[in-house]
Amino acid sequence: MDVAELEVAIVAKGNEIRELKANKQDVTDQVAQLKLLKANYKIAAGHEYGAAPGGETAPAPKVKQLTKKELRKLEQQKAAEAAAAAKAASVDPTKFGDAPLVQSQEAPSKHYVDVATINKSMDGQSFWVRGYLQTCRAKPKIAFLLVRQAAFTIQGVLTESADVSKAMIKYASEIPRESVIDLFVTVTIPANEITSTTQHDVELSVSKIFTISKALAVLPLQVEDAARSDTLVQAEDSDYVEVGLDTRLDNRVLDLRTPANQAIMRIQSGVSQLFREFLYSKGFVEIHTPKLLGGASEGGANCFAFDYFGEQAALAQSPQLHKQMACACAGLEKVFEIGPVFRAENSFTARHLCEFTGLDLEMTIKEHYSECLDVFSELFIYVFDNLNSRFKRELEIINKQHPFEPLKYLNPTLVLKFDEAVRMLNEAGIDQDPLEDLSTPNEKALGALVKEKYGTDFYFLDKFPLAVRPFYTMPDPNDKRWSNSYDFMIRGQEILSGAQRVHDPALLVERMHALGVPEKSLKAYIDAFKYGALPHAGGGVGLERVVMLFLGLPNIRKASMFPRDPKRLQP
Amino acid sequence: MDVAELEVAIVAKGNEIRELKANKQDVTDQVAQLKLLKANYKIAAGHEYGAAPGGETAPAPKVKQLTKKELRKLEQQKAAEAAAAAKAASVDPTKFGDAPLVQSQEAPSKHYVDVATINKSMDGQSFWVRGYLQTCRAKPKIAFLLVRQAAFTIQGVLTESADVSKAMIKYASEIPRESVIDLFVTVTIPANEITSTTQHDVELSVSKIFTISKALAVLPLQVEDAARSDTLVQAEDSDYVEVGLDTRLDNRVLDLRTPANQAIMRIQSGVSQLFREFLYSKGFVEIHTPKLLGGASEGGANCFAFDYFGEQAALAQSPQLHKQMACACAGLEKVFEIGPVFRAENSFTARHLCEFTGLDLEMTIKEHYSECLDVFSELFIYVFDNLNSRFKRELEIINKQHPFEPLKYLNPTLVLKFDEAVRMLNEAGIDQDPLEDLSTPNEKALGALVKEKYGTDFYFLDKFPLAVRPFYTMPDPNDKRWSNSYDFMIRGQEILSGAQRVHDPALLVERMHALGVPEKSLKAYIDAFKYGALPHAGGGVGLERVVMLFLGLPNIRKASMFPRDPKRLQP
Repeated sequence: MDVAELEVAIVAKGNEIRELKANKQDVTDQVAQLKLLKANYKIAAGHEYGAAPGGETAPAPKVKQLTKKELRKLEQQKAAEAAAAAKAASVDPTKFGDAPLVQSQEAPSKHYVDVATINKSMDGQSFWVRGYLQTCRAKPKIAFLLVRQAAFTIQGVLTESADVSKAMIKYASEIPRESVIDLFVTVTIPANEITSTTQHDVELSVSKIFTISKALAVLPLQVEDAARSDTLVQAEDSDYVEVGLDTRLDNRVLDLRTPANQAIMRIQSGVSQLFREFLYSKGFVEIHTPKLLGGASEGGANCFAFDYFGEQAALAQSPQLHKQMACACAGLEKVFEIGPVFRAENSFTARHLCEFTGLDLEMTIKEHYSECLDVFSELFIYVFDNLNSRFKRELEIINKQHPFEPLKYLNPTLVLKFDEAVRMLNEAGIDQDPLEDLSTPNEKALGALVKEKYGTDFYFLDKFPLAVRPFYTMPDPNDKRWSNSYDFMIRGQEILSGAQRVHDPALLVERMHALGVPEKSLKAYIDAFKYGALPHAGGGVGLERVVMLFLGLPNIRKASMFPRDPKRLQP
Repeated sequence: MDVAELEVAIVAKGNEIRELKANKQDVTDQVAQLKLLKANYKIAAGHEYGAAPGGETAPAPKVKQLTKKELRKLEQQKAAEAAAAAKAASVDPTKFGDAPLVQSQEAPSKHYVDVATINKSMDGQSFWVRGYLQTCRAKPKIAFLLVRQAAFTIQGVLTESADVSKAMIKYASEIPRESVIDLFVTVTIPANEITSTTQHDVELSVSKIFTISKALAVLPLQVEDAARSDTLVQAEDSDYVEVGLDTRLDNRVLDLRTPANQAIMRIQSGVSQLFREFLYSKGFVEIHTPKLLGGASEGGANCFAFDYFGEQAALAQSPQLHKQMACACAGLEKVFEIGPVFRAENSFTARHLCEFTGLDLEMTIKEHYSECLDVFSELFIYVFDNLNSRFKRELEIINKQHPFEPLKYLNPTLVLKFDEAVRMLNEAGIDQDPLEDLSTPNEKALGALVKEKYGTDFYFLDKFPLAVRPFYTMPDPNDKRWSNSYDFMIRGQEILSGAQRVHDPALLVERMHALGVPEKSLKAYIDAFKYGALPHAGGGVGLERVVMLFLGLPNIRKASMFPRDPKRLQP
């Protein structure tokens, strides 16, 4: 710009500032621009704006003193600025705004990178990121975005510049929290580590921002609150909102967005993955037993009944009968199943659900059910070892919100006989009948005693009294008060129940009579053992129990994606 | 024996033979023994038994001519033989007999080897084998056992010898078919390959045999019949029993014992295993969506309804709603599930079940659902490739009973547009409205046309008419008569249905209204999309369909372990 142009620009900028001030708007930027114009004027004219060329003070030029040409220029300038301002205030479709519905309009062409994988080595790289906008702290010339994708968070920064307009920052600041946004970013390294994100040592310089899916302005819970560490929330002098379990579960999709819950769901997936991995390596076959059963499941109570094309039917309370038939009667020998288990138990405890995921295993044994316990011991050690090594990052994330002690376990697993457990409890002054089942408090007390004596959170409790076990449990060969059955315990709570099973049809019927189980609805099951049956043993694990207890969570509902209890059928 | 002893033995043997003949029993062995005794007599006495020492014929010695000493000897001899015979006729508990119930009496000590692993390199090795006795062909001095373990069969041989008594052979011949037996064996190499077993080039010399679990003498079906090749059974001049599908399914544990069914169940397991393996490698998370839903599943008909503690509930017809919520609303992004799917459809076809196993996948997309189709293409090619390589032995076993053409597929998978499919059908003179769904016959006709034109049994059919798809299907961005949805086809039948999903709550409600789906029971689902939702696509595969069609089986019930249809809730 020459001196005349600079004069026009200075006058125009002054007018703009007055106008903005009249509207009580921020003029910081305009004042800075005015100063810059005046500095340039001084360089071009050789003297300060408003001063006479000789150094004497001259009156500031008035607009009315401008020539026609100058006036035309001023008008053009103003029109151009107005257009730019209008453009900046509205959506610049190339830089920011509400994106059209993603509807597969065009073949994919953009390069997206997952937040989880962004690291220092990418310094200077540019790409797209899609995530949830957890929070946005905006100042006039800068905005800080906390962007979350799965269990991972990163800081995005919009700094006013040639690329980033004020309007763009304003747009960003007005996007409702938890909306899905697309950012075009360049990776930078912040001067100081960012403590509020999982990606500590990188930052994203944002040059484009689009809303892909807009969230409601008012959400039933803030993910930031739901994600806060238990230690902070439960501190005596805490001011933080505690998001209650019901609020979380009522709005489970929001609750699941916390990094800890993302990681818990991945641990849940990991337990099944490792369970299968190990069993495949041992030659097991995955099976799918029917959940729809004629009559009542396992011949027992506590089943959901329904009409099946005019026939009475029930939902399987476990895959027990069919997995035995598959293993021992159909000759598949080594089988496992991962599937839903339905229990119509009207109880509200921290460890029961009406629907949970069963990890079931059944295998033939040649001589002794210790063959099966050996497999189980190896299996659980494999699962625990690999959770600790392959899911380290997830465990750290969970630990940050829900601090827990790593699980202690022995190799091979401690096998504690039921009668020894009774002795340990009695010696500790706790009532326990040797022929009765353990109550929940006694289980927990025993867990503590075992931890103290053997240094393990995980053990097998073997040789339960026969009377407290289901009809298909093999009695002890020497003393019929006992049985070849076991529970597995983590941190004093049961995660698995199992046994050697009865494979002799006469003994099976005898046991059914002894326990008052009607034969009628189990005819196909009993018959299956009349065609030659293989001796076998097995057990059923509750997946959510394993996750809950491995992570030391206080409630099983936190280990289930969409939990079901007697009062919860939604969402 | 001296000459006198031999005389006594010959007289005794003659008496034994007469007695046996009087009882119409087989005397082959005894005659042979008599001949041996006479041959020994000739050596000891220097002349034939019954001939005079000088060569002249003498009258055969009579028993009455025996001295008192000789008589005493004879009595002793008889007593000893009777004792031996009694011992042999009863159970020799160290060599054969009905084993006591396997009840974990002792720690495991025996070395067992799986039939599947027995091979030529083990020649001369001795160990235990446990399996089902499929058949026993017994002759007086030898018995051939066909022993089956899982999908594998081997021949066991009992040859009368110092180790194997006649009584033992008799015992073996009387064990009911399909009983579980333990054999102590030594591996031998037969002179000729054995064609009736999977282990062609080895044989087991049996020295001990015990019954572990005795089958009923009369079985509802013979596994030998059930295992016979389709080619033989269906031959025009076949004399073989054809075991009908209902007989098989009514007695499914016996039917499942055929090598082909053992292999089919392993292929079923393999499909899930490979499906998961691939998806884990791509960062997917395994989820478990609830099967118990408040109100009606997917808001539709065809669901099993039941009472849930006084509330109206339904079994999930698919994991659709919750897997979308997990993927797109909870931000898990890449999820899959393997679990039961319940359909109260009162139809009897060869490809529908009321309960089947769904392999479900849902993933976020950035721009276009082709991102999801690309994953699916890679996934299925991975599954098919690895079935062919890692389950070769199982495929061979199945092929032996149910001959089938190996599946042909392209890499990448052929994507055929629906309108092109309509054109192909029309050009072949087949009626097909461009805006209507394909009928089953048209699907099959199209399969044949595609096979002819493109040389593949597997393809994706893309861009179905919007009106024939569920409410959560994303409409085509340019023409609302179409949609971003697809089916996958194997050998002219659908195995998967999927689409880009609607992630915008307003459009979702619009689509529900358009299709008359009530909003009420889907409130939690719709709400989930109001908190920011990720664009996503996915699909649901029927596991049993994949198995059926990959193997070219004629009925889906053959690919389900315990199938459920409107008339079958048992076993």
